[in-house]
Amino acid sequence: MKNPLIRTLVATLLVLGSLSGVHAAESDQERIHAVLEAYEQALNAGDVAGIVNLYTQDGVFMPQHNPSAVGIEAIEAAYGAVFRTIVLEVEFDIVEIEVIADDWAFARTNSAGTTTINATGAKVAEANQELFVFQKTADGEWRIARYSFSTTNPPR
Amino acid sequence: MKNPLIRTLVATLLVLGSLSGVHAAESDQERIHAVLEAYEQALNAGDVAGIVNLYTQDGVFMPQHNPSAVGIEAIEAAYGAVFRTIVLEVEFDIVEIEVIADDWAFARTNSAGTTTINATGAKVAEANQELFVFQKTADGEWRIARYSFSTTNPPR
Repeated sequence: MKNPLIRTLVATLLVLGSLSGVHAAESDQERIHAVLEAYEQALNAGDVAGIVNLYTQDGVFMPQHNPSAVGIEAIEAAYGAVFRTIVLEVEFDIVEIEVIADDWAFARTNSAGTTTINATGAKVAEANQELFVFQKTADGEWRIARYSFSTTNPPR
Repeated sequence: MKNPLIRTLVATLLVLGSLSGVHAAESDQERIHAVLEAYEQALNAGDVAGIVNLYTQDGVFMPQHNPSAVGIEAIEAAYGAVFRTIVLEVEFDIVEIEVIADDWAFARTNSAGTTTINATGAKVAEANQELFVFQKTADGEWRIARYSFSTTNPPR
């Protein structure tokens, strides 16, 4: 390999090879997809700790009919209040995941299913649209940084 | 200016000077702030064309109680439907504007005011939380790329 061009090409291929070894297993999109699936599972399980682990420390949860929950402690309290009131059984349909910077992304989903109201046992049909902003945190994990949703059902 | 170092320094200063002439007048944060103010004004004026101009062509508007409006034509139709139904008189409080890439940003606001329902003339107190994703479009303007909001009032 005395030819400098060939040497450069081989070096480039080696670098690409090692990069793909690190990243190709899972792309950022796939990793964010997995976070959304973990969120769906934790929501349906009423698992506050599981959900809190998916948020950044300075994350913001914007639940309909409540003021924004700013920061991880407010988020934990807000989901605790949700799960004392209702049991969710919903499925998320991921419409788009857009990675817009090395450590920022957003995603849009639709969800549908049923909500059981604990106080009465009544089951209500749910349909929502969700907008998530994700941030890659210092440990390399993608987490929910901002999250807003609203019902797509007509007013009752 | 025969010294190459001085020549380079002077050229750099000239470039910086001309750049600051273009950009320093208004930061990205200030320009996004202005877009949010323009949105507030157009919303209160029931100005569909004004609002449409603030969105990207592939933007998404996620109005509570309606499916997501995807793309500029669906957005135009959705705001047209809103303004046939209600007249808004709201003020936005900008909580944060985060510029996360050269051409991406997000913002979080709270809004409050009154909604007049055209069919009945009834006035209702409004309070909402909003999450905007902004994109800088090819013409250099920041525009709304995704927008989700929900009421912070308790269910009626």
